[in-house]
Amino acid sequence: MRTITVSSTRRWVVVPYYCKLFGGLTRSHTRRLSPIFKYYIVVALLQHRYYGESIPFEVKSLGYLNSAQALADYAEILIHIKEKNNALESPIIVIGGSYGGMLASWFRLKYPHIALGALASSAPILYFDDTMRQNKITSAISQIFKEVSKTCYETIKRSWSEIDEAASTPRGLTKLSNTFQTCRELRYSSELKNFLESLYMKAAQTGQPVVKDICESIDKTPNEDGTDLNKIFAAVVAVSSDDHTHCYVNPPSALALEWQRCSEIMMPKGQGRSETLFEPAPPNQMEIMTKDCQSLYSVTPRPHWLTTYYGGHNMKLILKSFGSNIIFSNGLKDPFSHGGVLEDISTTIHAVKIEEGGHCEDIFPNDDANSQRLALVTRDEYKIIQEWITQYDTDRKSSSD
Amino acid sequence: MRTITVSSTRRWVVVPYYCKLFGGLTRSHTRRLSPIFKYYIVVALLQHRYYGESIPFEVKSLGYLNSAQALADYAEILIHIKEKNNALESPIIVIGGSYGGMLASWFRLKYPHIALGALASSAPILYFDDTMRQNKITSAISQIFKEVSKTCYETIKRSWSEIDEAASTPRGLTKLSNTFQTCRELRYSSELKNFLESLYMKAAQTGQPVVKDICESIDKTPNEDGTDLNKIFAAVVAVSSDDHTHCYVNPPSALALEWQRCSEIMMPKGQGRSETLFEPAPPNQMEIMTKDCQSLYSVTPRPHWLTTYYGGHNMKLILKSFGSNIIFSNGLKDPFSHGGVLEDISTTIHAVKIEEGGHCEDIFPNDDANSQRLALVTRDEYKIIQEWITQYDTDRKSSSD
Repeated sequence: MRTITVSSTRRWVVVPYYCKLFGGLTRSHTRRLSPIFKYYIVVALLQHRYYGESIPFEVKSLGYLNSAQALADYAEILIHIKEKNNALESPIIVIGGSYGGMLASWFRLKYPHIALGALASSAPILYFDDTMRQNKITSAISQIFKEVSKTCYETIKRSWSEIDEAASTPRGLTKLSNTFQTCRELRYSSELKNFLESLYMKAAQTGQPVVKDICESIDKTPNEDGTDLNKIFAAVVAVSSDDHTHCYVNPPSALALEWQRCSEIMMPKGQGRSETLFEPAPPNQMEIMTKDCQSLYSVTPRPHWLTTYYGGHNMKLILKSFGSNIIFSNGLKDPFSHGGVLEDISTTIHAVKIEEGGHCEDIFPNDDANSQRLALVTRDEYKIIQEWITQYDTDRKSSSD
Repeated sequence: MRTITVSSTRRWVVVPYYCKLFGGLTRSHTRRLSPIFKYYIVVALLQHRYYGESIPFEVKSLGYLNSAQALADYAEILIHIKEKNNALESPIIVIGGSYGGMLASWFRLKYPHIALGALASSAPILYFDDTMRQNKITSAISQIFKEVSKTCYETIKRSWSEIDEAASTPRGLTKLSNTFQTCRELRYSSELKNFLESLYMKAAQTGQPVVKDICESIDKTPNEDGTDLNKIFAAVVAVSSDDHTHCYVNPPSALALEWQRCSEIMMPKGQGRSETLFEPAPPNQMEIMTKDCQSLYSVTPRPHWLTTYYGGHNMKLILKSFGSNIIFSNGLKDPFSHGGVLEDISTTIHAVKIEEGGHCEDIFPNDDANSQRLALVTRDEYKIIQEWITQYDTDRKSSSD
C-alpha cells in the first residue's frame, strides 16, 4: 500500500483508485490522469492490498485478500490522512476505474461518512451472479475480434478444445507448460484457458490496436503439428509486457487476481445463447471451478457473495431511495460497459455515457487526440462533483449553526 | 443461529434483532413483542453468532465474533429466507433494540439492498470513540442510583478502590474469586470491576425496580472486615438470574460480550468532569485495557474501528444526503438514550422520543400498565414504516414499467 500526497493544503482530498491496478504508481501517472484531478488539492493514490508494490506470496495469507478488506484499508488510511492534515471535514471524492471503479462506488455506499462521493469509471458492477443473464460483454468482445479478423476469431474459438485435447495426452500438461512457457507448471488446462480469456478481455478493453496485435500474430504464424497452439502462443508473446522475459503465462503478479476470481469476483461467461469467442460454459461449470480453485488455492468460490454484500439486483429500485453522489461513467465502445450502470438512478446518482469512449478513458486518457472530446466529459463530471461539494458546504454550515 | 418463521405467506418479512440478546428465544417472546409485529406476515428472529443457543467456546474461534460478521450472517440468512419463500421483492424491515438496535440501523446502512428500513430502538450508536465526549450516560446511571439511595451510591463508588486493594494483597485475586464466587479464577481485578460496571448499567437500563433490589441488598448487608465487598456481593446475588446457581461472576455466557468489549464495542467511561458511580478512568486506561485484553483473550482493542466502519461523527451531516428509512427510537428515562439519535436527520431518518419510556420499551414492553401509552408510539412508528413500504411499492411499479 503506497500513498502519494501531492500537496497538503486543506481544501479537498481526492483518492483515485488506479484504473490499471497492475503496475506501479509513479508521479508521471499522476500527470497523465484526467484533467479532473487538477481541481483537487490533495491527491492520494491508494493501491489495493496484494497488488502493486507490496505482495505477500504465501497462499496461506491470501485469505486476507478481498474487496471488503481493501475498502477497510482505504477507510483507515483516509482517516489517517485527514487527521494528519488537520482536515477532518474536508470532503473526499473517490475516483477509480474498472475494478477500481467498482471499489469507488462500493466505498461511497459502504463508507459515506468518509467519502462524500464517487466517480466510478467503467465499473461493471452489474456483471455478477445472475444480475446480467445474457453474455453481452463476451459477445461485444467477440464482435471486436471478428471485425479485426474473422480467421483470428475462428482460431481462438477452436483453440479451447485443442488445449483440452493436448492436456489430456500423457504428460500433456507438461508439454503445454513448455509450449506456452508458463511461469509455473500447469496443473489444470483451465489455468491456461483462464489466462487466455483474461488476455483477450483486457485486449478488447484496451481497444482495437491491441486486438490487432493479437490477431496479426495469430494469422501470420503457421500451424504446427496440426493445431493452433503455436499461433495462440505467438499472440501471448506479442502482447506480453517487458517484465515477463523468462515466462509468459500466469506470472506471480497475476496470483492476486486469480485468487479473487476463485473467491469473490466471479464473472459469468458463456451463459447466453449467442456464439462468442470464448469456450461455452459446461453445465457443471461451477463444479469444475470449485474443484480447481480448492486444489490450486484452497479456496471455495462464493458466486453469490458480491451481490449479497454490495447488492446488484434491482440496483435502480434500491438506490433510488438510498445513497447519493455517485457518477457511473462508461465509454460505450468498451465491451464492459454492458455490465455498467447506463441510466441515471436518482438526482444524485448519475450515468455518464461517452459515445466513442473506451475503458476508463475519462479518468485515464489513452490518446492525446481524444483529449478535447474527453475534456468536455470531465468538465461535466467535475460540474456534478462541484454540486455535491457546494451542497455539503451548505449542509455543514447549517449543521454547525 | 436460530430462525423462527411464524408464518410463510408472501407479504412482508420482518426481522427483529432481539433486544435482550442473552437469553434463548421462545414463541412466548414473540407474543410479548410490540404490537407493531402483528402487522407483519413473516417474522424471523435472528440470533447473533456466539450469543444465544450456539456458543463455540474456544478463544481461538472468537476471532470470527464481531458485528460486521453478524450483519453478514443476517444478509445470507435473509436472502435464503426470501428465496425459500419465493419472496425476493418483499420488503424487509429490520427491528432491534439496544446492541440489536445498533445492528438494525447498521444493517440498513450497509445492506440497503436487503432491508428496506430499520427500527432501531434504544441504539446508542453515538456512544463510541470520541463522538460523545461527556460522560452523559454514566452520569444518568449515577443519578438513578443516587435517587434510590445515597448510601448505596456512596458504597458502590467506594468499592472500586477496595477491590483493587483486596486484589493487591498476597493471594488477593484468589480470595476475591472466592468472595464473589466467580465462575473462573480472576486474573485481574478489572475482570470483576468490568462485570460489576455492566451489572449496574444493565440495572439502570431496566429501570428503578432493579436498582432498588441492588441498593436494598447493599444497604441492608452489614460491613465485614472493614470493607464493602460483601455488600457488593449481596447485590450481585440479589439480581442474578436462576441460571447462575453455582457461580456468579463472569459466567461462560458472558464471554462473547467480554470479547466484543475487548475488540470493537468499546464504550468510553468516566471521561467527563462530573462525578459518577463508576471508577474514574485512569490516564492510561487504554494501555491497561490493551494489556488485560491481550492477556485474557489474545485480542488488541481497536477503539476507533466502530466509528471507522459505521461512522458516528457528524452523523446528521453525513446522513442528511445519504441513506433513508431508519427510525431511531429512545425512551428518555433510559440513561443510554444520551448515546442515541434524538433529532430527525432527514425526511426519512427519524428520531422518536418516548418521554416516560425506558430501554427498548417500544419493541419489548415491560409493563402492561404502559401498554396504552406505548401503543400510540408504535402506531406512529408503524405509520412511518407503512410510508416506506408504500413508496417502495410505487417505485417498484414504476421501475418495472
